[in-house]
Amino acid sequence: MYIVSVRGHMMIAHSFRGAAFGDAQRLHGATYIVDVEFRSPKLDPDGIVVDIGRASGAVNAVLAELNYRNLDEDTVFSGQNTTTEFLARIVFDRILAAIRRGDLGESGRAVESIRVTLHESHIAWAAFEARTDS
Amino acid sequence: MYIVSVRGHMMIAHSFRGAAFGDAQRLHGATYIVDVEFRSPKLDPDGIVVDIGRASGAVNAVLAELNYRNLDEDTVFSGQNTTTEFLARIVFDRILAAIRRGDLGESGRAVESIRVTLHESHIAWAAFEARTDS
Amino acid sequence: MYIVSVRGHMMIAHSFRGAAFGDAQRLHGATYIVDVEFRSPKLDPDGIVVDIGRASGAVNAVLAELNYRNLDEDTVFSGQNTTTEFLARIVFDRILAAIRRGDLGESGRAVESIRVTLHESHIAWAAFEARTDS
Amino acid sequence: MYIVSVRGHMMIAHSFRGAAFGDAQRLHGATYIVDVEFRSPKLDPDGIVVDIGRASGAVNAVLAELNYRNLDEDTVFSGQNTTTEFLARIVFDRILAAIRRGDLGESGRAVESIRVTLHESHIAWAAFEARTDS
Amino acid sequence: MYIVSVRGHMMIAHSFRGAAFGDAQRLHGATYIVDVEFRSPKLDPDGIVVDIGRASGAVNAVLAELNYRNLDEDTVFSGQNTTTEFLARIVFDRILAAIRRGDLGESGRAVESIRVTLHESHIAWAAFEARTDS
Amino acid sequence: MYIVSVRGHMMIAHSFRGAAFGDAQRLHGATYIVDVEFRSPKLDPDGIVVDIGRASGAVNAVLAELNYRNLDEDTVFSGQNTTTEFLARIVFDRILAAIRRGDLGESGRAVESIRVTLHESHIAWAAFEARTDS
Repeated sequence: MYIVSVRGHMMIAHSFRGAAFGDAQRLHGATYIVDVEFRSPKLDPDGIVVDIGRASGAVNAVLAELNYRNLDEDTVFSGQNTTTEFLARIVFDRILAAIRRGDLGESGRAVESIRVTLHESHIAWAAFEARTDS
Repeated sequence: MYIVSVRGHMMIAHSFRGAAFGDAQRLHGATYIVDVEFRSPKLDPDGIVVDIGRASGAVNAVLAELNYRNLDEDTVFSGQNTTTEFLARIVFDRILAAIRRGDLGESGRAVESIRVTLHESHIAWAAFEARTDS
Repeated sequence: MYIVSVRGHMMIAHSFRGAAFGDAQRLHGATYIVDVEFRSPKLDPDGIVVDIGRASGAVNAVLAELNYRNLDEDTVFSGQNTTTEFLARIVFDRILAAIRRGDLGESGRAVESIRVTLHESHIAWAAFEARTDS
Repeated sequence: MYIVSVRGHMMIAHSFRGAAFGDAQRLHGATYIVDVEFRSPKLDPDGIVVDIGRASGAVNAVLAELNYRNLDEDTVFSGQNTTTEFLARIVFDRILAAIRRGDLGESGRAVESIRVTLHESHIAWAAFEARTDS
Repeated sequence: MYIVSVRGHMMIAHSFRGAAFGDAQRLHGATYIVDVEFRSPKLDPDGIVVDIGRASGAVNAVLAELNYRNLDEDTVFSGQNTTTEFLARIVFDRILAAIRRGDLGESGRAVESIRVTLHESHIAWAAFEARTDS
Repeated sequence: MYIVSVRGHMMIAHSFRGAAFGDAQRLHGATYIVDVEFRSPKLDPDGIVVDIGRASGAVNAVLAELNYRNLDEDTVFSGQNTTTEFLARIVFDRILAAIRRGDLGESGRAVESIRVTLHESHIAWAAFEARTDS
């Protein structure tokens, strides 16, 4: 299996509901350093998994929709805790949609699985990974 | 698959037996920076894999048992080389026991697999990963 | 010159005023990974710059005052943009106050200068450094 | 599964053919920081996956063949873009050959799969992973 | 002293002349991860050292002039070994010129010193630092 | 000022005396990742601060004297706590001696100051820096 990974980041505000979250129930924020891995069993004729320019473009477009925002005010997330693992899934879903729209070109359509990792600090991260046909 | 990872560390002394270890047969030591990944196919009602406070507590409790010790004197390890890969397994076993005792709560019991990585330097690390029902 | 550095982190929400900030004028947030360096020309009789337990305790106490908060609502900062460089100074001032209160013991009083670095992402950080008698 | 990983690096020049590569069609270069992971379901009698000295030796020997070279002039790669993902596969193939020659000893022969990761910058990396019997 | 640092990177080919360079006399290449630190004794009315958007723009413009090139063919460097420390100075000089042209605005003109660090691998880096009035 | 830095590491056992050290009074150990920075106001005719091969050789020779040892048994350190900051000074002194012996060649003799940093974990490091004529 071949894997190519590109990195971006976003800086958001949010709060959590539920006693388990303790002080994180207050409005606070996070920098998420985001790695998106594209996995494919073979290389295209250029010798690549995906066009890294297109991949970076797609990742940055997804992160720009969330960046510099208070996620508590995004109606798409109403009734949901925007935890790191949940946001990893959101980024996954949106990257997958970009692939299906053809934003990553033909080699993008051959991607078999994707892993999205959000680093929230030097001591904690979360990820979501799944096949693109799931 | 969702994954949440928390980091801790421990600083131990030990020595190895076997000609293959060269100078590491002498009493020496290591800082192990330890990442414990919890993997689950779904999120709980709070939107999390595990309660990160409980997860950190369990990881720190396991590391505290080993931290600031000479592992050569721990009778649990007698006759064993406490290599990085062996210690990754020890931490795995003890985290698994904590989950089974309920230390990570109900969401902890839903964890499907665990990966423990011990970074011993900037150029070497070892890990152990397995399903929680193995 | 001897230097000892300890690391902590905080996760806050805030917004900036001024056209130069662009989208960062919206309410957003950040994880700041915080390194506090203590500098001294000599070691104390134990062979240390400062008691690292006390130093970590002081750093964590300072960060706890800011952690999991919306800094826009902290009246101490009213009329101020809580930029990364400004917050580095705030942490500096509060660590210095802790030293002067004796929270870091006698060796803490011998610290000649302090540097506080806040990493806001993998591509940007800011710092403030000054002598303790300034 | 047990995993042991060792790190090395190489500094090479090359250029790419294909409009998708943009400015990277010009002769340029890269530092690749290379992690080679050896995976095995069990430890040998010494408590290790592979002899880390032999593993490092094999990795460094493979990297030395490529290091400080212009890959455009290496006839082995003629007609091929030496992309990061392609080079990860090359390193994989050569490490596998070393294992089959016995360079990593008996424990090396028990390695079940290998993953080779090449970090090309702080924001991009590529990898190749496969079973040793593939 | 306040410090703000931004990161970029470049990927270049080059070779060195001189027996001390050993195999690095051959045409090879490097990824340089570049940190540019701007130091100032005070903050501007917005609470910043420099406008980070302008600073990033200036750094990226300087790196773009060198990126994806064979430095052996850049006549500006003829007769010079483009070592990591030498390139740190080149980036410094060009950032300083950008400041003097006003590319970083009024707050940029107040920058007292600059430090440019080029990371060439996980085990080596070089830097150049000087006052802006030197 | 030009700076060149090279990295190595060592893995040692030791214990501390003094109530302030708590559990670290027990025999334990550490991996120290060691950065040695060489600072010089000018480059030599080859365009370098020091011959990086010689510098790495000198650093590795110094670290080899300490690596894979129990520092409690090294009579050179008797009556001393081998804290991170103290060991940074030891490495400094030995690198300085190597420069004075001529191990880093003529360019090595022009080095004006040296900084030695020992990273003991992901959350703590210590350093010693001084002029070479001090």
